[in-house]
Amino acid sequence: MNTLGRILTLTTFGESHGPAIGGVLDGMPAGIAVDTAFVEMQMQRRRPGQNTLVTARTESDNVEFLSGILDGRTTGAPIAFIIRNSDARPDDYRELGGIYRPSHADYTWEQRYGVRDWRGGGRASARVTAPVCAAGALAILALHSRYPELEIFAYTSQIGDISTSTEMPANPAFRDESPVRCPDREKSALMEALVSRVRSEGDSIGGCVSCIVRGLPAGIGNPVFDKLHAALGAAMLGINAAKGFEYGDGFASASQRGSVHNDAFRMENGRIVTATNHSGGIQGGISNGQDIRFRVAFKPTPTIAANQETVTADGREVTFSAHGRHDACVVPRAVPIVESLAALVLLDQCLAAGKY
Amino acid sequence: MNTLGRILTLTTFGESHGPAIGGVLDGMPAGIAVDTAFVEMQMQRRRPGQNTLVTARTESDNVEFLSGILDGRTTGAPIAFIIRNSDARPDDYRELGGIYRPSHADYTWEQRYGVRDWRGGGRASARVTAPVCAAGALAILALHSRYPELEIFAYTSQIGDISTSTEMPANPAFRDESPVRCPDREKSALMEALVSRVRSEGDSIGGCVSCIVRGLPAGIGNPVFDKLHAALGAAMLGINAAKGFEYGDGFASASQRGSVHNDAFRMENGRIVTATNHSGGIQGGISNGQDIRFRVAFKPTPTIAANQETVTADGREVTFSAHGRHDACVVPRAVPIVESLAALVLLDQCLAAGKY
Amino acid sequence: MNTLGRILTLTTFGESHGPAIGGVLDGMPAGIAVDTAFVEMQMQRRRPGQNTLVTARTESDNVEFLSGILDGRTTGAPIAFIIRNSDARPDDYRELGGIYRPSHADYTWEQRYGVRDWRGGGRASARVTAPVCAAGALAILALHSRYPELEIFAYTSQIGDISTSTEMPANPAFRDESPVRCPDREKSALMEALVSRVRSEGDSIGGCVSCIVRGLPAGIGNPVFDKLHAALGAAMLGINAAKGFEYGDGFASASQRGSVHNDAFRMENGRIVTATNHSGGIQGGISNGQDIRFRVAFKPTPTIAANQETVTADGREVTFSAHGRHDACVVPRAVPIVESLAALVLLDQCLAAGKY
Amino acid sequence: MNTLGRILTLTTFGESHGPAIGGVLDGMPAGIAVDTAFVEMQMQRRRPGQNTLVTARTESDNVEFLSGILDGRTTGAPIAFIIRNSDARPDDYRELGGIYRPSHADYTWEQRYGVRDWRGGGRASARVTAPVCAAGALAILALHSRYPELEIFAYTSQIGDISTSTEMPANPAFRDESPVRCPDREKSALMEALVSRVRSEGDSIGGCVSCIVRGLPAGIGNPVFDKLHAALGAAMLGINAAKGFEYGDGFASASQRGSVHNDAFRMENGRIVTATNHSGGIQGGISNGQDIRFRVAFKPTPTIAANQETVTADGREVTFSAHGRHDACVVPRAVPIVESLAALVLLDQCLAAGKY
Repeated sequence: MNTLGRILTLTTFGESHGPAIGGVLDGMPAGIAVDTAFVEMQMQRRRPGQNTLVTARTESDNVEFLSGILDGRTTGAPIAFIIRNSDARPDDYRELGGIYRPSHADYTWEQRYGVRDWRGGGRASARVTAPVCAAGALAILALHSRYPELEIFAYTSQIGDISTSTEMPANPAFRDESPVRCPDREKSALMEALVSRVRSEGDSIGGCVSCIVRGLPAGIGNPVFDKLHAALGAAMLGINAAKGFEYGDGFASASQRGSVHNDAFRMENGRIVTATNHSGGIQGGISNGQDIRFRVAFKPTPTIAANQETVTADGREVTFSAHGRHDACVVPRAVPIVESLAALVLLDQCLAAGKY
Repeated sequence: MNTLGRILTLTTFGESHGPAIGGVLDGMPAGIAVDTAFVEMQMQRRRPGQNTLVTARTESDNVEFLSGILDGRTTGAPIAFIIRNSDARPDDYRELGGIYRPSHADYTWEQRYGVRDWRGGGRASARVTAPVCAAGALAILALHSRYPELEIFAYTSQIGDISTSTEMPANPAFRDESPVRCPDREKSALMEALVSRVRSEGDSIGGCVSCIVRGLPAGIGNPVFDKLHAALGAAMLGINAAKGFEYGDGFASASQRGSVHNDAFRMENGRIVTATNHSGGIQGGISNGQDIRFRVAFKPTPTIAANQETVTADGREVTFSAHGRHDACVVPRAVPIVESLAALVLLDQCLAAGKY
Repeated sequence: MNTLGRILTLTTFGESHGPAIGGVLDGMPAGIAVDTAFVEMQMQRRRPGQNTLVTARTESDNVEFLSGILDGRTTGAPIAFIIRNSDARPDDYRELGGIYRPSHADYTWEQRYGVRDWRGGGRASARVTAPVCAAGALAILALHSRYPELEIFAYTSQIGDISTSTEMPANPAFRDESPVRCPDREKSALMEALVSRVRSEGDSIGGCVSCIVRGLPAGIGNPVFDKLHAALGAAMLGINAAKGFEYGDGFASASQRGSVHNDAFRMENGRIVTATNHSGGIQGGISNGQDIRFRVAFKPTPTIAANQETVTADGREVTFSAHGRHDACVVPRAVPIVESLAALVLLDQCLAAGKY
Repeated sequence: MNTLGRILTLTTFGESHGPAIGGVLDGMPAGIAVDTAFVEMQMQRRRPGQNTLVTARTESDNVEFLSGILDGRTTGAPIAFIIRNSDARPDDYRELGGIYRPSHADYTWEQRYGVRDWRGGGRASARVTAPVCAAGALAILALHSRYPELEIFAYTSQIGDISTSTEMPANPAFRDESPVRCPDREKSALMEALVSRVRSEGDSIGGCVSCIVRGLPAGIGNPVFDKLHAALGAAMLGINAAKGFEYGDGFASASQRGSVHNDAFRMENGRIVTATNHSGGIQGGISNGQDIRFRVAFKPTPTIAANQETVTADGREVTFSAHGRHDACVVPRAVPIVESLAALVLLDQCLAAGKY
């Protein structure tokens, strides 16, 4: 199942160390201007090799569009695009032989398909998120074309034990200066130091991405089995290394009373708004016009330098230590992926609601 | 979107105070013996009016099967069933008029469809989960038919600030004696007291359901956009009042290092197992043969007796206080719903993997 | 696969001799007035026992709506409905034992599911088209609500060797007086006589239904794999006993030259129209605003009184002669089914094109 | 809607005069050996420029596989492939300006999307069938891997008024020598002469492709709304210029009696077979183990040299005469497309029936 969405569908393909990765985005409204510089920027925010905190693999991640765009605008035909893997090094992985790397997908994928793609995770690699960013950039452009005020803002809200407040950041613009994509300048510095230390120790560390969507109108969402937050949750949980999803007050709601959690409605300039936003902008699976707020938890990258006990395909117990090019913390690079998936889900649900 | 699943699909219908609710389960393997006593038991675990902790609405929740079953076995044809609403009281809600109840779906549903079902939440009511339990019971029977050892065990792991340990409960059988569906006898008593107190105060309280799946073979799950945990997450987030989903170590993974989180593989009686289970039994979206572990957070029921500020459809600010028949805590009744959805998702993914 | 459609979906269920048949129609626009007299009329046009030409089974085919309608209008929630089988006589079929009736689905269904529903065809019976008519009536109401001029007119255009011209009938209103649903008075009499004769001989006869859709705007259709005519064709070929589908000049196009077949465009009252309509109102899978014209071929009912050679499930060769209650010609009763499926497909594609 | 299939899905993309066309085939069984010479051969059978009867456009139609294949075998990951358009000449079409070519999709596509792809039909061009052939070749390989005896044989059975008998051709091997893909040597010569004459007159001509599938086991097909013949019909009707689909005796069934049409079952070497095959190998939408037989009608290509009346986007009536590179008859090149789509549908339905 390599397709996301119902009316707007994104089908992705490609492996980490194959010739190319890419996608087909079908169902895009026609007539949307394709700002290739914006697509490029979103790709750059995700791509490897940006700074010393992330993997040393260098990929330009240039997107070649093959169809669905004419004279700079979408035509309604499916938009296919490919991204060549220029720094693929499949032979780096040959030595692995039949070793199942702990907490990687080597073993489970082989159980599923009876075949192992030994080239560095193959289709299970986080490299498959690059096409998501290209398609997500187009979805953002389409949403802005219809809702100019709409803003999707994701950021690193936790790495290890360092976390920001749950409020909207005071200085959002700082996020793009921060090497860890954290808009809180002080916390960013602490996070950066932590990732550096973890990296130098050959270890890895988890974290969280928070996302705020502003300007989405009320009435977007598909009850009962495709609620807005369920569709967002499914998309986010599909990101490599994701372990949890919550929206509004999320798990904290479990300790709350209704008298605290409920969001009173009131009028403001003739519009219905809520006094608080414990709901995270969604009630009954449908947007209420307030900010959509959600958070995604990521585990530490499983690739670490320490010796680990594991087994081989033929059942031998062995000791294994990783030497690839990997991120000590995936969270900063997950920020544009979260935004991209949010845009794809929101556009799909706007189309379904007849509100595009 | 009232359909769940891809190969096995459940389409549900019905409103809280309409004539009937029900569902159509399509794609069930043929030849499965339908144990109607088991279906009945699952319905009873969810139904209202079980004890003084839950809503006073009394529904027998008898399931009438209309198709797809012959001589006590499934035929491969779609299985339709209905549950009559015997204690519907739509007129209880007439007085609401155009009031939007805070943190209910009244406002958002009306924004989505331009129509308001004024009868107690209508399709947005938690009553729509009854058909899920009927269908889930059939899915459990089908899974047991193929994997006799497979066990899906959900339980209340948190209400308010009272929570159980994250380990598999020592005394699982106690769960079904506990009025709050908590297998920890001591915590159960505390939770029960808390719900009673909250109820007497006209308030409500949130909580969590945990679920453990034992005996699922390795190799179940659909990468990339329908990973096992993403499909489980989407289903669980669709339950009324759900605010979050995590699997394995979930949000706690965000603070962990890879050297702690990784699950070493080892051999045990000729089988590949993991030494720990931080992954929650899923790696790369596919089961690894260990226990699947996940947790769902629920907000407090929005229906409370206290006066709340809100607005009407015509923009008047009013004070509102609820007088319906409602649960002070939805979590105990969510336990069989979580099991049912888990069974539906697992069966769907077993079928997709060619492992049924 | 018991679901038709993409945005508007109809899931049907039920067997010929089970307790009830029915359906769930999801994705209907909200706010459509449900004219139950119209639904009833469409059901009556299809139901058995109308006159001496058709099966003697008597079913009132009353539709009970269970959900999705409030105060006489659709709410956007799924519309479920059931039709009780009041004249089911499963025991009539017990004597069949393991006999595979020639050109029935007994053998193939058993090969597919490993189970045989011995009750008169079970899910493979044409009785499963009754829910299609109920849902189709709602789709017609929705189309008329948006396009008041739109008309879907199906009629019997051939029975045996008797066929009408391919032009739009001169006297369409006569169709509903004709016991064979043929608007050509003279041909209707000939067809009626033919069906009576075939019936008295214990035999059956095939025929064709033609359909004309007037008033559909240009721009409806989903290229590449869900073209308007492909979606219509798939729906029509799903009707029991259907053997072929063509649109516009259809199979006759195979003998034509482009200089004859092409439809010249011209202006008429400021609108673009075509001078001829060999295309059947569809070019490149999308409507061009002219009449949609298509035709469906049906084989003779396989139930006949003559002795036929066949085999049993355990491989014995036997002679078989049918004694059930059956139609000598299914075509007249297929007329409202064709209209219903056309309405469901057109509404689905209008919604997909953003033209509802 | 650019995706075909349910479990095995093919998503295609690309325009006639854009940089590339291609597809993503998802759901392929893992471990299938990819015989690239066979893929190449299927592409060659469809490609333009093969002989003087077809369009002068020259395309090598080389398929570049980008993913899903490792060490010569499928991995279970989606298989993406692209075909560069090397002889695209979009500027040939600039002069068309706003002219709507009669019986082309220019006008309807523009009505659907509000945008016109002026480059020679764009996505509506028959060039979009090239990816179908690449994917179909893989499906044929997968079917042969599971059912070595299975054979899918399509051929030209009619051009203009010249048609072959409906029997299986006596000399099937001649088909691939015939420039019109007709296995009847005498009829092939007549068809060839007819196409040459029509071509020299600047006109075009229609025809039919027949297809026979041998060796498919009984029990393949998805009732009620995805019957084997309905799925085949929908796929075939999606081919450019297709106007009709019939299976078994098809439209001829309309004149038949049941006593003639019914296929008696009998035993043959311990297997259940039918004495005749009016059904075309399908009863109740499910295969019965006999030959599947169907036929597809194609209209004459709309591109002709004669002057034709038409209109422009701004409503002017003009005279138009085509000067592109086009086929006088699309039928010969449709033969491998029919086989490819049949293979994709059959594999999808085998997977759905759990019979792969």
